[in-house]
Amino acid sequence: MDVLEAIRKRASANKFDPARPLSEAQVRELVELATRAPSSFNIQHWRFLAVTRKEDREKLKGLAYNQQKVADAPVVFVVLGDPRAHENLAHALEGSVKAGLMDAKAVQGLSGMAAGMYADPRAQRDEAIRSGAFAAMTLMLAAEAKGLVAGPMIGFDPDAVKKEFKIPERLIPVLMLPVGYAAPGNWPQKPRLPVDEVLAFHDGAKL
Amino acid sequence: MDVLEAIRKRASANKFDPARPLSEAQVRELVELATRAPSSFNIQHWRFLAVTRKEDREKLKGLAYNQQKVADAPVVFVVLGDPRAHENLAHALEGSVKAGLMDAKAVQGLSGMAAGMYADPRAQRDEAIRSGAFAAMTLMLAAEAKGLVAGPMIGFDPDAVKKEFKIPERLIPVLMLPVGYAAPGNWPQKPRLPVDEVLAFHDGAKL
Repeated sequence: MDVLEAIRKRASANKFDPARPLSEAQVRELVELATRAPSSFNIQHWRFLAVTRKEDREKLKGLAYNQQKVADAPVVFVVLGDPRAHENLAHALEGSVKAGLMDAKAVQGLSGMAAGMYADPRAQRDEAIRSGAFAAMTLMLAAEAKGLVAGPMIGFDPDAVKKEFKIPERLIPVLMLPVGYAAPGNWPQKPRLPVDEVLAFHDGAKL
Repeated sequence: MDVLEAIRKRASANKFDPARPLSEAQVRELVELATRAPSSFNIQHWRFLAVTRKEDREKLKGLAYNQQKVADAPVVFVVLGDPRAHENLAHALEGSVKAGLMDAKAVQGLSGMAAGMYADPRAQRDEAIRSGAFAAMTLMLAAEAKGLVAGPMIGFDPDAVKKEFKIPERLIPVLMLPVGYAAPGNWPQKPRLPVDEVLAFHDGAKL
């Protein structure tokens, strides 16, 4: 599917066909594509919990204001961000070193820069959310290209979800993302504000 | 261009051809596509400042650790997020009402829900960043489809950029995004961590 067509067609789904599962291979491919998103220094702050078992999705639904899509979608991703992922930058860059894109000295330099840049907890949290959102957006467009639908959600209890699904304390839930085949009744993409209301040239005074 | 090809090929660019400008129509089309991203309640927290004049990009470069790409790229977007955008939800949904997708009563209900959900300043900031990142990721893939390259950046002084470019106090800089035609010397997409290191099924204990 063409990129611009996918961008123009994609809409947040609420209705999923509970009778059409996704294979583990499909779930893995969606995540592999999501990790192609960029991240600061290639830190790759994103982590993904795939909730696929019916009984687990029912539990998750109970922690998400009983929204039916959580039980109906064959997979619900809990997209997480690691605010301290920069501490493992050297590991994240091992592939780049092996590919000959950088050497150990460059990795050391970048790790030092990242440590300075993310000393502040707010900067850590902001970056975990930014990277998680990049990955989630990429996953949504990949799903669209695969004939699937997705519906990003933040209406859930993040602490209860962490506890129920044994998510490590350091990780921040960025959003939940049910993915599957569409059932009838989804809205089309809703109209957006006119471009001139959200875009300014030269200076931002009118924004 | 195919969605999956764009996702697999896109890489953060550092080298832009300063001799190839983008038209105002190209800039507007990229932003129009970016606004197709989803946002909570369709609030559309994103705002875009397009810095296109050479002298302005030189000023911006000085506020971004003198990174040359800021001066070379024909347009640098400052992607902003409005943490209080939910206060204008009724306006953001006018198009949906006109299109017959919802009525005034539904808008009132959603506005009340959003007011509750975003009472907390941290939730406001998180959402502004999440939505801005969704829009920026969509813009990067749209740029790829158009034969352009983009390089997301957070290495800049957000307060100084706001002051210099008359950006309203309430807006949060989410990132800067130089966009243009590639010059030689860009890296390919760097290798990512293996999927099994970032994905868990059923519970998140191993993440």
